[in-house]
Amino acid sequence: MTVAPLTTIRFTGESLHLLDQTKLPLVEEFISCGDVWEVCDAIKRLVIRGAPAIGIAAAYGVCLARNEQGLLDRRSAIEAIELLATSRPTAVNLFWALDRMRSVANRVPEIDLAASLIAEATAIDHEDRRMCRAIGRNGASLLDGMTAVLTHCNAGSLAASQWGTALAPIYCLHEQGRSPKVFADETRPLLQGARLTAWELSRAGIDVSVICDNMAGWVMQQGKISAVIVGADRIASNGDAANKIGTYGLAVLARHHGLPFFVAAPSSTFDHSLTAGYQIPIEQRGRDEVAKPGGQTWVPEGVDVLNPAFDVTPHELITAIITEVGVIDRPTAETVRNHFAG
Amino acid sequence: MTVAPLTTIRFTGESLHLLDQTKLPLVEEFISCGDVWEVCDAIKRLVIRGAPAIGIAAAYGVCLARNEQGLLDRRSAIEAIELLATSRPTAVNLFWALDRMRSVANRVPEIDLAASLIAEATAIDHEDRRMCRAIGRNGASLLDGMTAVLTHCNAGSLAASQWGTALAPIYCLHEQGRSPKVFADETRPLLQGARLTAWELSRAGIDVSVICDNMAGWVMQQGKISAVIVGADRIASNGDAANKIGTYGLAVLARHHGLPFFVAAPSSTFDHSLTAGYQIPIEQRGRDEVAKPGGQTWVPEGVDVLNPAFDVTPHELITAIITEVGVIDRPTAETVRNHFAG
Repeated sequence: MTVAPLTTIRFTGESLHLLDQTKLPLVEEFISCGDVWEVCDAIKRLVIRGAPAIGIAAAYGVCLARNEQGLLDRRSAIEAIELLATSRPTAVNLFWALDRMRSVANRVPEIDLAASLIAEATAIDHEDRRMCRAIGRNGASLLDGMTAVLTHCNAGSLAASQWGTALAPIYCLHEQGRSPKVFADETRPLLQGARLTAWELSRAGIDVSVICDNMAGWVMQQGKISAVIVGADRIASNGDAANKIGTYGLAVLARHHGLPFFVAAPSSTFDHSLTAGYQIPIEQRGRDEVAKPGGQTWVPEGVDVLNPAFDVTPHELITAIITEVGVIDRPTAETVRNHFAG
Repeated sequence: MTVAPLTTIRFTGESLHLLDQTKLPLVEEFISCGDVWEVCDAIKRLVIRGAPAIGIAAAYGVCLARNEQGLLDRRSAIEAIELLATSRPTAVNLFWALDRMRSVANRVPEIDLAASLIAEATAIDHEDRRMCRAIGRNGASLLDGMTAVLTHCNAGSLAASQWGTALAPIYCLHEQGRSPKVFADETRPLLQGARLTAWELSRAGIDVSVICDNMAGWVMQQGKISAVIVGADRIASNGDAANKIGTYGLAVLARHHGLPFFVAAPSSTFDHSLTAGYQIPIEQRGRDEVAKPGGQTWVPEGVDVLNPAFDVTPHELITAIITEVGVIDRPTAETVRNHFAG
């Protein structure tokens, strides 16, 4: 079954339309952002999430910058970039995309600014599609022939453009009629696995089963899983990878069961300024996401709750990092350096 | 701070009153069961849960058996035992308690049956209190001096009588003014950690923080945890232990981080008829517990969901099993046999 690829980010020139992921899977609704503040708010509220998608949305967001006269000038563009950079701290693709927009804003004559910024944001968007396709092809050779893979959170169409990152090899194999079955961790607290990964895979006709996060050990113990594949929000230069909270535990479980553990991410996810994963800032989110999902109180009032949004998987636990420019086997500072030097 | 111990099971002779754990932490409400069917339904619906508590409630449930004339006779008692044995499959304490009730039902003259069954159920209840206290004392020596322990699901007052099992050493140390801090996994799908463990520990004045299940690896990696302690629903004769789904993953994480992993359970949790954990029947529960918590749809319609209620931790991953008659270090078929022979 072939289904038209999802396009969750649509830019009209006047506004940015984002599929509201907080309402999935029940409601498929786009929200319209008319200015930079609305884009920033949408990223903060996770209307759009996923490291590559945040970068694309932020890039288009810069194109909505306006000064007091309603015009896009250099100063308003730079202010927009600074505002958007405060939206979320962990995903590096956000800063990478904003750096590209800043470079354009600083370089081109003001008269060409609006068109040049739109061209750059569109380029980031289209490059992402090509990168996701390339990740899909590179990862497909690793997953080909496997019976079932486990994934965590959502690193698919909804987290990037079209094929996504961790799900790209699965979509690629699905096009060839031989996708593995997917087990999707529900991914507390915000349930991106249950709500988003299950939604987009079943929409594409791919066999998917949802499990609670704490069932991952059990499905591996039962021999149901051939490999684990996840995305990443930031990767240090030694291959340590930050991704959605719970990823690290899965990597430990995969190692215990002798299963390959793959990270799929575009090159823009690497932060070469960081030597190791402990330097990656980890976003701490609010209590209510854990304590009151859907508004119901599950944790008694007054009881402390932790809510780190990400964790860091040390490179020793990663079998390979799949990028659009090839696969880094057994990532280390050396293999990562060689990969990008080569 | 000393708080009166919780009594969640109250038998009046005419009815069995159970604290409705499905409504915690928001509402503290007892339901009244007037016959065996209501007790059976309460166990199935998890109004009462936790291996020792199920055994106690079922024993009292047998005392509510009545024949068509409204009298407790041998036949109605045996039928009640058979009905209650169908309520849940994994916790062996249920069958152990019902076997004790059956033995009384088969042995005593019918004229003495009602009083004898009540005496036996009361004995099971009171023995459980003493067992939990003894588990507390035995476990306290293992946890003494630790900064923080991680627990999963609820194996406290609400799962047994008063001190519970896994939480008993913590209550014991708390009486002496030196309880470790507790991290409670929320424990999807039914959130017994968030709703029940957090409720009873904070009520007793013990420092508790709730985390999502998938944060356990992160808190260990951050060095926040000294040990893991959990209860058990059934333990095979080689020390393999079935407990709430997610326990096995925690045991793997504890091993990876070099942390002790303790199982606390009364002797009645051992099923000496089973040589290994794979023989323990694992209850599979309904889709909606995972897909529609609180009635909200989180998993798209038509997408498959797995919901095993328990998993089995192999004895190799268990540092010690804490019972009311002492601690089994490094449980194996041999050390378990020696423990109960000694």
